[in-house]
Amino acid sequence: MEAKHILIGHGSGGRLSRDLIRNLFVKYFSNPFLDGLGDASLVSIRGSKLAFTTDSYVIDPIFFPGGNIGQLAVSGTVNDLSVAGAIPEYLTAGFIIEEGLSINDLERIVQSMAEEANRAGVSIVAGDTKVVKKGQCDKLFINTSGIGHIPEERRHIQSGERIETGDKILLTGTLGDHAIAILSARENLEPDEAILSDAAPLNLVTELALQTPADIAAMHDITRGGLATILCETCENRSFGIKLYEDKIPVKQSVKSICELYGFDPLYLANEGKIMMIVKKGTEDHLCSRLREEPLSKDAVIIGEVTGDYPGRVVMQSFIGGMRNIDMLSGEMLPRIC
Amino acid sequence: MEAKHILIGHGSGGRLSRDLIRNLFVKYFSNPFLDGLGDASLVSIRGSKLAFTTDSYVIDPIFFPGGNIGQLAVSGTVNDLSVAGAIPEYLTAGFIIEEGLSINDLERIVQSMAEEANRAGVSIVAGDTKVVKKGQCDKLFINTSGIGHIPEERRHIQSGERIETGDKILLTGTLGDHAIAILSARENLEPDEAILSDAAPLNLVTELALQTPADIAAMHDITRGGLATILCETCENRSFGIKLYEDKIPVKQSVKSICELYGFDPLYLANEGKIMMIVKKGTEDHLCSRLREEPLSKDAVIIGEVTGDYPGRVVMQSFIGGMRNIDMLSGEMLPRIC
Repeated sequence: MEAKHILIGHGSGGRLSRDLIRNLFVKYFSNPFLDGLGDASLVSIRGSKLAFTTDSYVIDPIFFPGGNIGQLAVSGTVNDLSVAGAIPEYLTAGFIIEEGLSINDLERIVQSMAEEANRAGVSIVAGDTKVVKKGQCDKLFINTSGIGHIPEERRHIQSGERIETGDKILLTGTLGDHAIAILSARENLEPDEAILSDAAPLNLVTELALQTPADIAAMHDITRGGLATILCETCENRSFGIKLYEDKIPVKQSVKSICELYGFDPLYLANEGKIMMIVKKGTEDHLCSRLREEPLSKDAVIIGEVTGDYPGRVVMQSFIGGMRNIDMLSGEMLPRIC
Repeated sequence: MEAKHILIGHGSGGRLSRDLIRNLFVKYFSNPFLDGLGDASLVSIRGSKLAFTTDSYVIDPIFFPGGNIGQLAVSGTVNDLSVAGAIPEYLTAGFIIEEGLSINDLERIVQSMAEEANRAGVSIVAGDTKVVKKGQCDKLFINTSGIGHIPEERRHIQSGERIETGDKILLTGTLGDHAIAILSARENLEPDEAILSDAAPLNLVTELALQTPADIAAMHDITRGGLATILCETCENRSFGIKLYEDKIPVKQSVKSICELYGFDPLYLANEGKIMMIVKKGTEDHLCSRLREEPLSKDAVIIGEVTGDYPGRVVMQSFIGGMRNIDMLSGEMLPRIC
């Protein structure tokens, strides 16, 4: 790595994060489970196949339009298991608390976690609490780790090994809502139409999709790095590329306006309630209409396809018909978004 | 709870921590797995019995005599699984990094984690990296979560349901080494005899003990809150008490001297490489001599017994023969010890 010190961009989910993971974590921890680098790791205990994942949440502010750090911490980890094809079952919660945090605030957060766990059908089975002095952390950080059973017939989803030319790219809803809700809270923006975080447990959506007669080759929740980074990672070193249609990508008008003001591209923004699915040609329309019946995926739409024309690359056909290359996120636009 | 704000003592592992856990986390997250409040939670996935645990590490300094935060994060979680009777198998690692941390330091820490995982025979299968701005955390916090299989015949160890009058209390080595090593580093003390942290993965010790023909009723690693707190929790609301013999409790002379200087009681200090076991009468001597063959438990000794005389209480017979009550830790002597 070229940097001698950790930069904010190392936590972005984009290129710097990837370099850090490959050059440091994978280098030392190397094992067949980790090397897959998926949203969750697939492990085996006494013949039982499990997905196992972890995420730390450092979002600022801890209460934001549409949610709080606790609700996010539960749904984020449920989602990492869900998009691996697993059925989320048990979560742990580790709290790092700054001395002086209001116990009322902590209680509201813990209560949200319980509600969100209940909604997702998971149990929070173990926890840990550390307290540091004032100024040694920023209010509250939460780690959640999760495990879930992964049925035999879903084991290809995590690796994306069945993705092939002709497959369709499905998006379950509008891009950028979570990131722009956080930005609005930080900057005291008052958009005409309130923008709420889309954070939600998405096992409802993935189960619905996996139980629909449609053939799903891959799923990813669209968090740090945004849709662009996730699609770039999907095609990297593969024989196919991905072609997106700009006019199909759904972004709310209020989100679009703030993005224009701040120079953000919704393709790179973190969502906490949207999934990208890669689905076999011919089954996409049925899946899309089925997903539109569920409130969490009511804006599901096909936004592109897997193509043999641009191997290893993501390209986007713009409104006016030109093609442009889409690269993964470099640097960091909005730190502490999750 | 009486406090309106989080105090340092809420992270001590003592009385305030217990109140926070019971009045907040257990209140909202309540489920049969969590309610056991053990070092790890026992869960079941498709008939497979697992222990699942989490711990966040915020130790200051991140490099200390005898170890670093990474080595501690791996062994601490391995130990929580081990004392539940589980065979630790997979770990996750979540990093919260302060912008500006030296990548060389991070690499040394990650390398130690890999070495420690290798020593314990576990794989680190998933990870997460968050970066916060300078001043928003203190260098580096690490969360590790872990899972392991728990054989049928060991499921009573976690609950302590088989503890009864006459059982013996075994300690695998000297008290206070870890806490006093950290204190020495913080205060630039230079004791005559160097004091090193005892942090180590203890599945070697628990496996040795569980494979010895001895009947083990309970095990706990002696971390935050110290031996006193762990024993108090063991007898709480039970029909038995625990009697300790002060002259049997091993403490290194150098640790004792610093404790006297700072007014610390080794009974309340955190260790990261010692276990308390409760073992059936008649099998304790055999277990003790077997444990002494393993370097990590070479100072194993019987320090007390389970008694019907003081139900729900821990008492200690002092050097001069008097009896005193031992209560759980109140407040916090040394924050950020793990």
